[in-house]
Amino acid sequence: MAADSHIVKSYTAELDQLTTMIAEMGGLAEAAVADATLALRRRDSDLAQRVIEGDRKIDALEAQVASNVVRMLALRQPMATDLRTIVAALKIAGDLERAGDYAKNIAKRSLILNQSPVTGPISAIANLSQMVAAMLHEVLDAYVAGDADVAERVRDRDEDIDAAHTSLFRELLTYMMEDPRTITACTHMVFIAKNLERVGDHATNIAENLVYQVRGEHLIDRHVVPGERNEL
Amino acid sequence: MAADSHIVKSYTAELDQLTTMIAEMGGLAEAAVADATLALRRRDSDLAQRVIEGDRKIDALEAQVASNVVRMLALRQPMATDLRTIVAALKIAGDLERAGDYAKNIAKRSLILNQSPVTGPISAIANLSQMVAAMLHEVLDAYVAGDADVAERVRDRDEDIDAAHTSLFRELLTYMMEDPRTITACTHMVFIAKNLERVGDHATNIAENLVYQVRGEHLIDRHVVPGERNEL
Repeated sequence: MAADSHIVKSYTAELDQLTTMIAEMGGLAEAAVADATLALRRRDSDLAQRVIEGDRKIDALEAQVASNVVRMLALRQPMATDLRTIVAALKIAGDLERAGDYAKNIAKRSLILNQSPVTGPISAIANLSQMVAAMLHEVLDAYVAGDADVAERVRDRDEDIDAAHTSLFRELLTYMMEDPRTITACTHMVFIAKNLERVGDHATNIAENLVYQVRGEHLIDRHVVPGERNEL
Repeated sequence: MAADSHIVKSYTAELDQLTTMIAEMGGLAEAAVADATLALRRRDSDLAQRVIEGDRKIDALEAQVASNVVRMLALRQPMATDLRTIVAALKIAGDLERAGDYAKNIAKRSLILNQSPVTGPISAIANLSQMVAAMLHEVLDAYVAGDADVAERVRDRDEDIDAAHTSLFRELLTYMMEDPRTITACTHMVFIAKNLERVGDHATNIAENLVYQVRGEHLIDRHVVPGERNEL
């Protein structure tokens, strides 16, 4: 009996630890997105460098989540809700790891852009970045609270992000056409904008995985890629 | 005893079915990449449309793999090699599904490009596409054969793809600078080139997952994104 309750307690502790690790990954990914854009806006190459180095911590956490998940599947043989929670954790950790990679990529491109004079619609990029970081923040709050209703509402906001991205993309094309000397810089910004939009897609995936975890509805992981939800 | 051997047989059949579904997904993804580029090269919008519609089948197979994996984890409580095979199948199906999404995105962009006169380095794109489709083909052969050595050799070829992509990217920038009227078309091609390079990254992920499955070495899923392995 004592042994049994020990096992139960330790299992609950393991599930809690998964949630904690994912919350930590989420906080790091959100900060990375915000800092990468700030590094571009303030031309702060030191900050960009810190974002690039900080990505290792997100990667390490994902590896730890994956390792815990495999161990729990093997040793605990979870069923129903627990199984869904564990599988969802693996997927969500993957989405956050990729969000961190996109932030790192933005930081790398900021380093390149900081070597030339300022050009392009930086404030529109900052605006898109803010929308994306806020979406990520809210979906993680929903995750920690286990709230599928909030997750569904957050998911719907991806459309606003797609619209903002499309508008920014067109602005960048106009910049390049009006002044071909900006083509190299603006092409980096086209990718930065796309990276931000992709982080929004991963926030959407997280929302959908949370709905699956809570309600057991069939998991649809859209694995969205550029142009999957919006044309450009 | 009879019941036991029935269970064992049915389990083996389930594992085989996973491999078959992934081989099928791989064949479809490889064809989608080749056809999407062919649609661009031959300005064949009907073919592009078929690639776009065909992506549903890849998505459906991935959903089936995910559903089978969750069921097998729950009912079979696999250990060691079997557990790794099942977890790797889930990851590999995810990579193939995304490869299909990238092909679909290339097809969508082909439809747009086909509305304007021919421009840009189409043959260099076709060349990159061929490299990527070949890599995907070989890693899937290695998967079906369960050959980690071949998988490792295939993985190393991703560097050639990255180099070809970087060269193509620079060619596209030059096109745009020399004739700003090509900016819109060439920006679509920048994304097409990036999509192809990403399919190569997913083929690399598949190779790494196969090594994990066969050897049990710690799974490193790099989840590479633009600029993660090469700067641009």
